Amino acid sequence: MVGTKTTERKIRVAIVGYGNLGKGIESQLSKNPDMELVCIFTRRDPSTLETKSSVPIVNTLDVYDWKNKIDIAFLCGGSKEDLPIQGPDFASLFNTVCSFDTHAKALQYAESMNKAAIFGDTIAMTSIGWDPGLFSHMRLLIKSVLPNSKVYTFWGKGVSQGHSDAIRQIKGVKDARQYTIPVEQAVQRVRNGETPEFTTREKHTRLCYVVTEEGANRSEIEKQIKTMPDYFADYNTTVIFISAEEMLKNHSKLPHGGKVIGVGETSDGVKQVIEFSLNLDSNPEFTSSVLIAYGRATYRMWKDGERGYKNFSDVPPKYLSSMNYHDIIKQIL
Amino acid sequence: MVGTKTTERKIRVAIVGYGNLGKGIESQLSKNPDMELVCIFTRRDPSTLETKSSVPIVNTLDVYDWKNKIDIAFLCGGSKEDLPIQGPDFASLFNTVCSFDTHAKALQYAESMNKAAIFGDTIAMTSIGWDPGLFSHMRLLIKSVLPNSKVYTFWGKGVSQGHSDAIRQIKGVKDARQYTIPVEQAVQRVRNGETPEFTTREKHTRLCYVVTEEGANRSEIEKQIKTMPDYFADYNTTVIFISAEEMLKNHSKLPHGGKVIGVGETSDGVKQVIEFSLNLDSNPEFTSSVLIAYGRATYRMWKDGERGYKNFSDVPPKYLSSMNYHDIIKQIL
Repeated sequence: MVGTKTTERKIRVAIVGYGNLGKGIESQLSKNPDMELVCIFTRRDPSTLETKSSVPIVNTLDVYDWKNKIDIAFLCGGSKEDLPIQGPDFASLFNTVCSFDTHAKALQYAESMNKAAIFGDTIAMTSIGWDPGLFSHMRLLIKSVLPNSKVYTFWGKGVSQGHSDAIRQIKGVKDARQYTIPVEQAVQRVRNGETPEFTTREKHTRLCYVVTEEGANRSEIEKQIKTMPDYFADYNTTVIFISAEEMLKNHSKLPHGGKVIGVGETSDGVKQVIEFSLNLDSNPEFTSSVLIAYGRATYRMWKDGERGYKNFSDVPPKYLSSMNYHDIIKQIL
Repeated sequence: MVGTKTTERKIRVAIVGYGNLGKGIESQLSKNPDMELVCIFTRRDPSTLETKSSVPIVNTLDVYDWKNKIDIAFLCGGSKEDLPIQGPDFASLFNTVCSFDTHAKALQYAESMNKAAIFGDTIAMTSIGWDPGLFSHMRLLIKSVLPNSKVYTFWGKGVSQGHSDAIRQIKGVKDARQYTIPVEQAVQRVRNGETPEFTTREKHTRLCYVVTEEGANRSEIEKQIKTMPDYFADYNTTVIFISAEEMLKNHSKLPHGGKVIGVGETSDGVKQVIEFSLNLDSNPEFTSSVLIAYGRATYRMWKDGERGYKNFSDVPPKYLSSMNYHDIIKQIL
């Protein structure tokens, strides 16, 4: 029972889409000797793709050739345009893991991934990464242990790609990098066991570094950023204009992080505070590390006979690790 | 598939042993409306026990009368004397959850609990609480996501019962309370992404409040504490003598907490830091809250057909919560 679990052969991995996340998975697989990359799928002309590894680069049209040759496919497309179509297509052929993060459409996506996975006799593991993903896990864990608790999520300090892109759409802007920053006083209040209702403005601030074109109207750009609905209007936003050189030198990395903090009382005035926080030098490299661990788990659950839609909440933690069960008891417990 | 999961009737709970932990479970069950306490087992004469709830108090000799009337029994005895015997006895009759925390004997205990649970057609969920338990979960999660990471565990600030008891054994000591305190500089170094090798002394300090008998030799007591092997000799220890009144007024609570921090690189110089921390006003109330969530999960896994020894690493997070699967996707993901 508490015996050693060994995998006979390496888990065969495919990457679907070769952007930041796909490249992250390619690089992080080297830290997981129980897995091996067997191919990279792309919608582009494979001959135009330069990859670090020497595995075949396959056009997605030829995906059927790879049925039964892949244990887990990591879907590295975007949630808005790519995954709603690519997701079910691949889930009908392979076990998949993806980072689908459009909260409003999570149930709809779950239904369509489930149908495809049941049809394909596979598992479709979705919304994996750190938020959704590890942070979802922590929110559920806190709510399970402290049912009457209040749970707060703070993001940052880190680069938000969506907000950076929104600034780049403004006329006269050449480049932009937007950092989301949690308000330290708000974090401290929760850590101290308070349970306030925060406004959007009270939880996060936004810091924007902007490179403009020659002769651009900077005060007009700053006004457009600060009043942009949804993205900036509800926040205290700081805009700093910098040179293209400074952007390249100081803002080319993609750090991120955040915290989930839960506060609950177990009896009158007896506070219990649970905090989970991430401080990440590279968002894509960390996200791909999380995907890989859940890819391992997905394949193991599939070998155990599980099928269909899954998310973080279905995964027994032991399946995430390459450690055997004996060692978990001896070294981790 | 992603349908609503409902429990038809409440989960029937028994408490085994009515100390701090048993009382904690009794009080925390009120926050979990899907569970109901049906009886409390004790080795004492039931008529001598005053409990808050009105359920039957049953002598452990009459345990067989309760077969098939209990879905989950929380074993609240100590790891040293009680659980090695009580554990298998109860696991052969009921699904059990316990907080067994003697690391050196974890495998041996796992084997004996597994045999009893297989014999009894039950699940024996062991080493549940916050350490072992939630902290074990975090250590495994960090090692899974960042296989090359280094993981540190810090405890405190909080009362260590074992160390307080050790001081009380010294001649001339009337009462004592020992706080374990993490060294802030050590925590900060790890948070900043360093991965040092710490000595015992560099990670924690020990702070002791001591009430002495009249005429006791305080300098001798202080010396005996500070040089006590295993407990204090390897630490920087501070001893403060106080009055019995001050002890009662300022040190009657049992706060605790701690942190698990993992530091890993995903590529050269790219640091990723994961931290999980607890700040607890009441150690027993929090520990019992954790046990209750894992009790719910244990019963659900049993209904799914699982049997035998289990620990935190076997539990899909969705089973810990009374939320249905739809709501996990909609509200938590």
